[in-house]
Amino acid sequence: MGLVVQKYGGSSVADAEGIKRVAKRIVEAKQNGNQVVAVVSAMGDTTDELIDLAEQVSPMPAGRELDMLLTAGERISMALLAMAIKKLGHEAQSFTGSQAGVITDRVHNKARIIDVTPGRIKTSVDEGNIAIVAGFQGVSQDTKDITTLGRGGSDTTAVALAAALDADVCEIYTDVDGVFTADPRVVTKARKIDWISFEDMLELAASGSKVLLHRCVEYARRYNIPIHVRSSFSGLQGTWVSSEPIVQKTQQQGEKQVEQALISGVAHDTSEAKVTVVGVPDKPGEAASIFRTIADAEINIDMVVQNVSAASTGLTDISFTLPKTDGRKAIDALEKNKAGIGFDSLRYDDQIGKISLVGAGMKTNPGVTADFFKALADAGVNIELISTSEIRISVVTRADDVPEAVRAVHSAFGLDSDSDEAVVYGGTGR
Amino acid sequence: MGLVVQKYGGSSVADAEGIKRVAKRIVEAKQNGNQVVAVVSAMGDTTDELIDLAEQVSPMPAGRELDMLLTAGERISMALLAMAIKKLGHEAQSFTGSQAGVITDRVHNKARIIDVTPGRIKTSVDEGNIAIVAGFQGVSQDTKDITTLGRGGSDTTAVALAAALDADVCEIYTDVDGVFTADPRVVTKARKIDWISFEDMLELAASGSKVLLHRCVEYARRYNIPIHVRSSFSGLQGTWVSSEPIVQKTQQQGEKQVEQALISGVAHDTSEAKVTVVGVPDKPGEAASIFRTIADAEINIDMVVQNVSAASTGLTDISFTLPKTDGRKAIDALEKNKAGIGFDSLRYDDQIGKISLVGAGMKTNPGVTADFFKALADAGVNIELISTSEIRISVVTRADDVPEAVRAVHSAFGLDSDSDEAVVYGGTGR
Repeated sequence: MGLVVQKYGGSSVADAEGIKRVAKRIVEAKQNGNQVVAVVSAMGDTTDELIDLAEQVSPMPAGRELDMLLTAGERISMALLAMAIKKLGHEAQSFTGSQAGVITDRVHNKARIIDVTPGRIKTSVDEGNIAIVAGFQGVSQDTKDITTLGRGGSDTTAVALAAALDADVCEIYTDVDGVFTADPRVVTKARKIDWISFEDMLELAASGSKVLLHRCVEYARRYNIPIHVRSSFSGLQGTWVSSEPIVQKTQQQGEKQVEQALISGVAHDTSEAKVTVVGVPDKPGEAASIFRTIADAEINIDMVVQNVSAASTGLTDISFTLPKTDGRKAIDALEKNKAGIGFDSLRYDDQIGKISLVGAGMKTNPGVTADFFKALADAGVNIELISTSEIRISVVTRADDVPEAVRAVHSAFGLDSDSDEAVVYGGTGR
Repeated sequence: MGLVVQKYGGSSVADAEGIKRVAKRIVEAKQNGNQVVAVVSAMGDTTDELIDLAEQVSPMPAGRELDMLLTAGERISMALLAMAIKKLGHEAQSFTGSQAGVITDRVHNKARIIDVTPGRIKTSVDEGNIAIVAGFQGVSQDTKDITTLGRGGSDTTAVALAAALDADVCEIYTDVDGVFTADPRVVTKARKIDWISFEDMLELAASGSKVLLHRCVEYARRYNIPIHVRSSFSGLQGTWVSSEPIVQKTQQQGEKQVEQALISGVAHDTSEAKVTVVGVPDKPGEAASIFRTIADAEINIDMVVQNVSAASTGLTDISFTLPKTDGRKAIDALEKNKAGIGFDSLRYDDQIGKISLVGAGMKTNPGVTADFFKALADAGVNIELISTSEIRISVVTRADDVPEAVRAVHSAFGLDSDSDEAVVYGGTGR
């Protein structure tokens, strides 16, 4: 008998029917001999509706009170889910984040989990109950105020509880069948990935894949909790994210070793913009003063490139990408410090897109980079910025070119679902 | 500087506009130099909507989970109210029942408050904040589960907090101007009562007056907390409920002693039914076995009358009144024990109404009873049952007769608003 932590998102519990369907799935896991803890998000549009109400009374609601308000959302879904499970003849108890021992810092609206003390959850499941836990919320260690975890908070709650309870697996139920080699809305031939390493998944998440957020994968890697991303609608095996390839049991084939492909997938992201600082004196400390300005404005930047200085002027240009939502703030901060930094002008471009190829296999295969650029060139896609890590190559292109670029790369690396197999690289670079 | 506990019902905070209006009123109290704690109910129809959702997933939702669900309602209204107050430039913090230290027994859906430990509220107001507290909810002492207090729970929360905080007054804001000498929907000439004793208010509440519930008044009397019932819309002085007549300050007249009238008011209640147990052997223990059966079914009865036994048969009839909602349960319980109790048949009548005259003055004025019956007789109203206490006379009539009966009694005792003054009784019975 194992302990399974499951997480169901808002789209899985959007209405009474969804809640009943999820209840059945939870009960199945229990009937399979597991102890079950289910983390649940707010129903469908509840959070948006609550934010809308808040804006009606105050355009800039205070963080503490906004958290108090929003946590009503999971309270509703978790209580309903517990009722639906009891209706099916099984014992269930719902718990708020605070009751479940999710201890956070005091940063309202985007708190970080600093400890999990799941004593009540442990007691509840040991007594034979299914424990339902509110995702996305916790209680601050020092003020005892209710906090919310921000984007992807429910996934993180599930992984953190799985770690604290030493669960066998954390199942993330969502509205897609798992993690794909590319976004299936862009690449119709995208394949579901059976297994992916924590590292590759982190790179995909950082590169625009939205199935799992970076934060949640990072937590799972730190505590080595296998994640199983799967559909709450189909019941099919989804994608396993873990440190080592895991052995899957499938009904048709018995045991089957899931192997890691050379390339995990192609991610894309059109949520970023590019800022170019024009006419920066090419001397030590200039870049530092630009990025200190950006950091002080609490903006996370992604890619950075500095052009070769024109010898005649002694001036250079520095470009970086950042979330579009922070664009206004970055421009304002730089303009404010224009004299201190010393530059000519700023250019802002929000019509860019990023395409990333991710796979641990590329570490030892320099040919991957060459093939990646060739695929883009063959598709007529112009590259504006390049950034690489050991297991990822990213390029910035025009936003309009993104769909075609993703399809071209996906196909070139043999990821299309009707390919015979993935491209195999030898030990020699080519 | 005083400490004021205010309570706002669901109709006062039905939408964003209502919340903003209530926020202004709370801020006024603060600006008048008071520390302010505001207890708030769920917005308008929220509770009904949540119950509707619960019924969609489970026809008989578990008490623990229903409480978890329903407490989301006040969470929403209190957070929004705190935001609205902060928007007005004042500091506010919202607290759940649990955070406010409302400790209850573990009877879900109708828990009773057993202790209030308002440490966080005290700290919050001492720091200059306005504290907003969720009404209707608490946390069970032994299980630490969230509970709700049942009907009138928000009023009781307010009074209990006022007692624990040693507040100067508990202001209950509602959608009427105060407590009236009769239901203004029935008696257009009903007058607002300026002051009423706890005892008279308890009798009015027990007799069908819906402005304040019995439970809340009882709590206030035990801890001697003056209650001020008033409109959240008009801002006028309402009705004071306290042990001694209080001195009111009015702008026009300076200080004015509010005196207690002989008769406080006329209450009516059409929510009860009458059960008659026919053909009961007239011997010791028979009535006890009937009311033991009813008590075991957890039904509270109101009035009881036993007819004089017919000497020829040795059989008697026993009638009692009870909430209509418990009628089915009572009949079932009695039928089930028919053999043990020994009776011929049961009669059930849900077309009854009760009219009650309440006033401490009647204790020493036997003429009151005679005038009461005369007023009913003059109005052609037939009396079916009679029950009296030291400060109340109640009669049961046909439900159809209730409006006419209430108007007749109200007028006979000089309570109509265009009367010159209330009827004055001398020391001799008449």
